[in-house]
Amino acid sequence: MRRWNGWGDEATSMELPAHGAAFLQELIGEGRRLADASLASVLAQVPASRLPAHALISTDAETRVRHARGQSLPDWLAMREGNFAVFPDGVAFPETAAQIRELLAWAVDQEVIVIPYGGGTSVAGHINPQAGAQAVLTLSLERMNRLLDLDEESRLATFGPGANGPQVESQLRAHGYTLGHFPQSWELSTIGGWVASRSSGQQSLRYGRIEQLFAGGKLETFSGTLSLPTFPASAAGPDLRELVLGSEGRFGVISEVKVRISQLAEDERFYAVFLPSWAQALQAIRELAQARVPLSMARLSNAIETRTQLALAGHPGQIALLEKYLALRGAGEGKCMLTFGVTGNRLQNAASLKQAKRLLKGHGGVFTGTLLGKKWAEGRFRFPYLREALWQAGYVVDTLETATDWSNVDSLLNKVETSLRDGLREEGERVHVFTHLSHVYGEGSSIYTTYVFRPAADYAGTLARWSQLKHAASQVIAGNRGTISHQHGVGRDHAAYLPLEKGEQGMAVLRQLAGHFDPHGRLNPGVLLQD
Amino acid sequence: MRRWNGWGDEATSMELPAHGAAFLQELIGEGRRLADASLASVLAQVPASRLPAHALISTDAETRVRHARGQSLPDWLAMREGNFAVFPDGVAFPETAAQIRELLAWAVDQEVIVIPYGGGTSVAGHINPQAGAQAVLTLSLERMNRLLDLDEESRLATFGPGANGPQVESQLRAHGYTLGHFPQSWELSTIGGWVASRSSGQQSLRYGRIEQLFAGGKLETFSGTLSLPTFPASAAGPDLRELVLGSEGRFGVISEVKVRISQLAEDERFYAVFLPSWAQALQAIRELAQARVPLSMARLSNAIETRTQLALAGHPGQIALLEKYLALRGAGEGKCMLTFGVTGNRLQNAASLKQAKRLLKGHGGVFTGTLLGKKWAEGRFRFPYLREALWQAGYVVDTLETATDWSNVDSLLNKVETSLRDGLREEGERVHVFTHLSHVYGEGSSIYTTYVFRPAADYAGTLARWSQLKHAASQVIAGNRGTISHQHGVGRDHAAYLPLEKGEQGMAVLRQLAGHFDPHGRLNPGVLLQD
Repeated sequence: MRRWNGWGDEATSMELPAHGAAFLQELIGEGRRLADASLASVLAQVPASRLPAHALISTDAETRVRHARGQSLPDWLAMREGNFAVFPDGVAFPETAAQIRELLAWAVDQEVIVIPYGGGTSVAGHINPQAGAQAVLTLSLERMNRLLDLDEESRLATFGPGANGPQVESQLRAHGYTLGHFPQSWELSTIGGWVASRSSGQQSLRYGRIEQLFAGGKLETFSGTLSLPTFPASAAGPDLRELVLGSEGRFGVISEVKVRISQLAEDERFYAVFLPSWAQALQAIRELAQARVPLSMARLSNAIETRTQLALAGHPGQIALLEKYLALRGAGEGKCMLTFGVTGNRLQNAASLKQAKRLLKGHGGVFTGTLLGKKWAEGRFRFPYLREALWQAGYVVDTLETATDWSNVDSLLNKVETSLRDGLREEGERVHVFTHLSHVYGEGSSIYTTYVFRPAADYAGTLARWSQLKHAASQVIAGNRGTISHQHGVGRDHAAYLPLEKGEQGMAVLRQLAGHFDPHGRLNPGVLLQD
Repeated sequence: MRRWNGWGDEATSMELPAHGAAFLQELIGEGRRLADASLASVLAQVPASRLPAHALISTDAETRVRHARGQSLPDWLAMREGNFAVFPDGVAFPETAAQIRELLAWAVDQEVIVIPYGGGTSVAGHINPQAGAQAVLTLSLERMNRLLDLDEESRLATFGPGANGPQVESQLRAHGYTLGHFPQSWELSTIGGWVASRSSGQQSLRYGRIEQLFAGGKLETFSGTLSLPTFPASAAGPDLRELVLGSEGRFGVISEVKVRISQLAEDERFYAVFLPSWAQALQAIRELAQARVPLSMARLSNAIETRTQLALAGHPGQIALLEKYLALRGAGEGKCMLTFGVTGNRLQNAASLKQAKRLLKGHGGVFTGTLLGKKWAEGRFRFPYLREALWQAGYVVDTLETATDWSNVDSLLNKVETSLRDGLREEGERVHVFTHLSHVYGEGSSIYTTYVFRPAADYAGTLARWSQLKHAASQVIAGNRGTISHQHGVGRDHAAYLPLEKGEQGMAVLRQLAGHFDPHGRLNPGVLLQD
């Protein structure tokens, strides 16, 4: 059963090794454990629903609890404390596009706010109901999860919007195909959610971001259905797919998603290489991207992340041996781990690997074979479980991310890390901060920063610590040529920073579009656009 | 000097070989030559300008003639007949974004229509002034043609919007870079025009379409400047670059273009392969695209185009020898020529070539080495000059294009060809029709069809023939899952078919955007959107 107050399935958990806790303790002090609320205590808080009865809508208390929050840190704290504040008045489970349209029409009649809901994995506050005079209906698409059509010749698959990662891949795999879209939230997040929030998968270097994979589909809006036909490319005016991508439930409800799929690759391997320094590593990964070496993924940890990963990896004896080996070959203190993958046919992969090796060796790269690469691949969806493990050990972890042009990557990365590392200095608290680049492009890179801090004495104080850190880093990003999100979307948490990026004219256009599709502001108000 | 009534420079021309004319004569009958008007006779028709004097605006008659028409077939016929109908009242040549904004403000004061003008190469009626009560100002960007900034680390170059292909490439080449965008119109078309009309270059397989190359920039609109910052990727809501791409001068005037550039490749080669049949060739090129073989271009001529190209190539003795060689190896009657290129470093190119050869040989491909590939590369911008050569020989040539998913490519291609081949049957006229696929994707392909027919006894009759053919083919495209344009844009000529593709909701959104940026319909009315 899915956790009601955290990530993933209750049966799955991650252990923090003892020396991992010691590592953190040395860095930021001993952890502090805040008390968790029980589900029963939360259920007791759920008020009566304000919605009239409707056959497609459940007003059951537990269903409402389970659809009230996403996976942002404020959501996490609210769930652990049992302090939800607001619940949706009901959750609808439509099974067809016609039922979505019926529910939208009903919402107009009943003057109800509607929140489209995919996998509930937002880390930016996309699906949280707000307090207000109007009742809130959460519209879960989980029953619309099937592969509806497969055009093998065109490599196009049509899905219901609620298919989550495993449902997408298993239905395609049965025919020999893959979408190749693997965000870290893959186990729970949905294809419709990926489109609505412009998601990026770990192997986007080969398969593309969701923008490249999304070929067309349907958006149900208050002013009618927007149908997007599929073309391999078109010069027929502005591309309207781009208004659905990133629409975050503000313009309409995605009722059908057509995606570009690939044949399952005959060969796939992941490698780990250690570079002697950040400067060399940064140049190496930029050159890999700009030379168009056909890799399927590349991820570069900075020195602190490399050290942290090795410390938290378990098997300290083996790690010590590895570090000795690396140091002998020139990658000692300050070394940075680069993980990369090749995916395709054997001939192509062999050529790509040869090219990558040649380039990386020129920058002092030390290869360790496929063992660490395999470990990365096996654990690729496990990171979100770490929050639970750290919480049990008395620590809070969150991540934030941006993307910027290469000429600004190092500078912005340092500014973001500094803003977090120094963010709680006034309270005398230390913050452990580390970063990797996980999506590289010819023009620049994403920057993905993790920060670990201790809870305050209570939940309110802990949330205040987070708010201070998040705001400091977000200001740095928005003020220094970073996008406010490379892969998580805007939601509520980033909405205040969006105008800095889109500008006055850009915001005016987005408001125009929202006004057109949803003239009464009934769809997910406050998300993406604050007003 | 640029031709005032046709394509390119007066000093450049193409000869139609004698046996080429004989080939056409056998297929569609003897050519007919219509009389050309003189520039003097056209200059005499230019009416007085209705514009008040302005320092940035020329009202000189020849300047107005030279900015009155693009390069569509109706434009061609109008220019050859000397029947322009409408001229712009003046042409402005701003040198800065501030001057563009000044001219827009002036246009509001003076109640003047404004037509943004890049290279004047539109083949879909993008820049033609229309008769009306309001004066028309054509706004040429030709003086804003410089490389303004180069961020080598991020591989980003900033250009004025009026830089044409040679200006873009020569300024980048001086620093060791290329944009890699080579549409057939490259000699004259501009970077701003490419963005405004969603252009695609011949090597888009490597470098991407202009959508992938356009990183940001500025659009001057009647409601203010829309500034698009550069990010390698972003999940921060809808991507507003996509509203500038394909805006066709309806939403604003592009005043600055930032593009993603590449290092000049160390190695580039083009090859020609002949496949025994269209069925085999079609499957082979689809597999090349779907297997992601890292080619830089791939172009497949159907059997009629292959035959036509060999017939028009010159050197009939050599061609006969080539055909004998091909036939002995299994590519005889019905053979199809596939041209492809590899661009990059030598290691990468060798691997790509090996992979492509293996795949193509599996489909009966017969390699002819690099000679024909070289010929393609040398003549790649020469095709537009062929219209002049055919006109001199008494024939009219035009092309049209679309794109569709692979499962529909063969069917749509046949329907388009049939609609043209049979299009003048009632008049007893034959039309010579042939096709190639020039831009291939995992999902589908562009379809580029050329048609040659004889002029009627006069210009009006010739235009009527063209209109009948164009309308028949456009209806077939719009009614059979094709986009109305893969690379030429909408303009006026395709605007009537756009609603079939965008749908009611899509058209409503586009009208909303036009209304927002240009509330009084002062920018290029009738282009993209008919109303």
